[in-house]
Amino acid sequence: MAEDPAGKSVLARLVEIVGAGHVLTADEDKAPYLTEWRGYYRGVTPAVVRPASAAEISAILKLANETGTPIVPQSGNTGLVGGQIPDESGREIVLSLERLDKVRSVDADGATIVAEAGVVLERLQEAAERAGMLFPLSLGAQGSCRIGGNISTNAGGTQVLAYGNTRSLVLGLEVVLPTGEIWNGLRGLIKDNSGYDLKQLFIGAEGTLGIVTAAVLKLFPRPSGQTVAFAAVESPRAALGLLKHARKLAGTGLTAFELMPRIAIEMLVKHMPGARDPLAAPHPWYVLIEVSSGRGESDAHELTLRSLAAALAEGTVADAAIATSVAQAQDFWRMRHALSEIQKHEGASIKHDVSVPIERTPDLIRLGSEAVAKAIPGVRPVPFGHLGDGNLHFNFSQPVGADGKAFLARAPEVHGIVHRIVTEMGGSIAAEHGIGRYKRELLKGVKSEIELEMMHKLKRAFDPNNILNPGRVV
Amino acid sequence: MAEDPAGKSVLARLVEIVGAGHVLTADEDKAPYLTEWRGYYRGVTPAVVRPASAAEISAILKLANETGTPIVPQSGNTGLVGGQIPDESGREIVLSLERLDKVRSVDADGATIVAEAGVVLERLQEAAERAGMLFPLSLGAQGSCRIGGNISTNAGGTQVLAYGNTRSLVLGLEVVLPTGEIWNGLRGLIKDNSGYDLKQLFIGAEGTLGIVTAAVLKLFPRPSGQTVAFAAVESPRAALGLLKHARKLAGTGLTAFELMPRIAIEMLVKHMPGARDPLAAPHPWYVLIEVSSGRGESDAHELTLRSLAAALAEGTVADAAIATSVAQAQDFWRMRHALSEIQKHEGASIKHDVSVPIERTPDLIRLGSEAVAKAIPGVRPVPFGHLGDGNLHFNFSQPVGADGKAFLARAPEVHGIVHRIVTEMGGSIAAEHGIGRYKRELLKGVKSEIELEMMHKLKRAFDPNNILNPGRVV
Repeated sequence: MAEDPAGKSVLARLVEIVGAGHVLTADEDKAPYLTEWRGYYRGVTPAVVRPASAAEISAILKLANETGTPIVPQSGNTGLVGGQIPDESGREIVLSLERLDKVRSVDADGATIVAEAGVVLERLQEAAERAGMLFPLSLGAQGSCRIGGNISTNAGGTQVLAYGNTRSLVLGLEVVLPTGEIWNGLRGLIKDNSGYDLKQLFIGAEGTLGIVTAAVLKLFPRPSGQTVAFAAVESPRAALGLLKHARKLAGTGLTAFELMPRIAIEMLVKHMPGARDPLAAPHPWYVLIEVSSGRGESDAHELTLRSLAAALAEGTVADAAIATSVAQAQDFWRMRHALSEIQKHEGASIKHDVSVPIERTPDLIRLGSEAVAKAIPGVRPVPFGHLGDGNLHFNFSQPVGADGKAFLARAPEVHGIVHRIVTEMGGSIAAEHGIGRYKRELLKGVKSEIELEMMHKLKRAFDPNNILNPGRVV
Repeated sequence: MAEDPAGKSVLARLVEIVGAGHVLTADEDKAPYLTEWRGYYRGVTPAVVRPASAAEISAILKLANETGTPIVPQSGNTGLVGGQIPDESGREIVLSLERLDKVRSVDADGATIVAEAGVVLERLQEAAERAGMLFPLSLGAQGSCRIGGNISTNAGGTQVLAYGNTRSLVLGLEVVLPTGEIWNGLRGLIKDNSGYDLKQLFIGAEGTLGIVTAAVLKLFPRPSGQTVAFAAVESPRAALGLLKHARKLAGTGLTAFELMPRIAIEMLVKHMPGARDPLAAPHPWYVLIEVSSGRGESDAHELTLRSLAAALAEGTVADAAIATSVAQAQDFWRMRHALSEIQKHEGASIKHDVSVPIERTPDLIRLGSEAVAKAIPGVRPVPFGHLGDGNLHFNFSQPVGADGKAFLARAPEVHGIVHRIVTEMGGSIAAEHGIGRYKRELLKGVKSEIELEMMHKLKRAFDPNNILNPGRVV
């Protein structure tokens, strides 16, 4: 462990900054911060440090620069690309944001909320709800992910269609820069062109350009009515037909549009307690559609019916089931949210988080499924997700009865196949989960030299000593 | 005029790059590029160069770096802060984007349009309309401003409430960097977290970090019904009450919400041919409210009525007139759009383009009006604009009968009063018109040292020789 220029150990200095109780060095204390729930990434660290304020974080980063100590910021530890887990070098200090956990203020009239980085997303949603408002960011991990991480990864989720990615929910930020200066950009303005929009730099930068410590976020009126339905369609192309009708009629009242294939329904029915086939007969594809209205339940219901009717008349929708109770609507959503998890009951799976221009999603599904099936006969494609955003979780379950380990060993080959098709379509190999450590090398294959150099320019300008989350993203 | 390292003049090199016909050096040819419509900024230049492609712009910027020649990019020349006009040094070359004027493609199914920087905004709106779609950016100068300038200034306008600023309409960009490299970031993705979101750097950077040459922009379904109404309210606070009802009921179907004071109506009725008092009796404040619906005219009408009724019941709306024809709706909008212009019939005016958190707008109007009236007795405040975005054009007409020149001479003092109040409220002194040359010095008074240094870091990283729009913004 390094010493500072005065010969004091870094750990001793950290204790001075945050207090002994918040520099964790015992293995059992550090363990929860050193791996993520899937166990894909495991790291080593001399200490997990738990500051309570931007000022303490500032002091830590100044110390890190003095001593060349790499710092890995960690928020809710739900990231899927290894960005928040220290590497195996034993040099990286984990900086946890969990003690910055206050909702500072909620302004229903101004439709804004000010929250610290460590607030759990679900707590933030609840604070908005108590004020009669909606914070729309919604995703599977919302019970444990924290808003600082959501901002640093520009999280997507299921409500992007209506409310945008996290980026469009952020009005202002407080950030500790890699060199330790605190930038107070906590403004709550819809319109501000007074110089460069600096907050954009830190949204989606995965903690490599600064540590987000607090944010001003947008709130929305709570819908007074909501309808959830399962629609059966012949193909992803037919689903796009339904999407068009629903967008035209409901505008941003169309709050979710999630595609799933028949095999996903079968896996759910087989493995998820309480899951039922949503329609009497089987169909090749399904869409979970959610419509919200500011005018009440019956209006949301009418909009859903009219959208479905327009698509039925065109023959793009074969059948549909509208949830008749809040409980049934929740059941429909539970099925959608369980999809990532449920696949493991069918053995190993190789996953992708990709996006293409919306119109190309049917081609991506067809070409990707064909190409991977050619390489691995019997593979079971399970492409599902946010069709309305062109974002698919394009997963492949192992052939029935195959060896899971041998299947997983072919992940790089399968990634190569899928990412090549995505790239040829002008798509993204990291739609909503980010780059982290996992996809950093892959970026070199899909980005131009110029773009990579632009990223490095930013990193060098803001983190000249490369101490903040090094080896992630750039 | 400088020479390149081989001794050739810069003008000769420019002719080699774009052809003699596109290097304008005669005074009468240069004149339209050297002043803006109000005549506030007048500049001097050795030449206006009119490239036809990103490749030509790349060559020009490489030459500029070799020879230390400052370049001022100019799009539609409608900017209000002097960013696009060369200074008086006679050193700055104007680079006009007007020849990059192609709409490259329109994709109604994918809801995207690809346009070059020089496309006039109104042409872009028309191209979207021909495809049955809407490009929502809408502002007074749309007949002459060009999309490259709209992007570089993150233009606002009257539809921000529903569709966001220009920033939220941009999916991808092609940019020539200050050093001449061409970055192709023309992606059409809703979700993309594959590294830093570099396009954000150039949106609103006023041509100081790169020259935007083309963009992928979002399209929306055209509303199938629209209602425009004038509502009379007792105060700006009462207008916020109406805003809340309309947002709750119509969501993003509320497409415009524009405040204006009685004095504005009086100026319009007096000076604008065909303008009529919208309501029988005079009222202290008015809101122009526009509601759009994907379900048709009668639905837009119903939403408007219900919003007005809810506010009437609370006593926040005193009276209202709903346009009964498309022609009348257009008349209402013409009155709103004429407001900036019409003030000149009442003598000199001192203008501000400011924003505050929405809930503070009534306080801003009250405190600002009082403070300026104290400094200049008889001054006539005319605060109007995008109340739904917290963005006001907070203008002051001279006292009746006063000397216009003497009044204008006090502009710095009035700016100081208004900007101080705005800053104390956490607002912005440049909400939608940008910084340019006009407000660059003012920034030092309202931004922290750290924020200014962050801006300089970006400028140095991307434009090390400071050749692109120097002296603007940073």
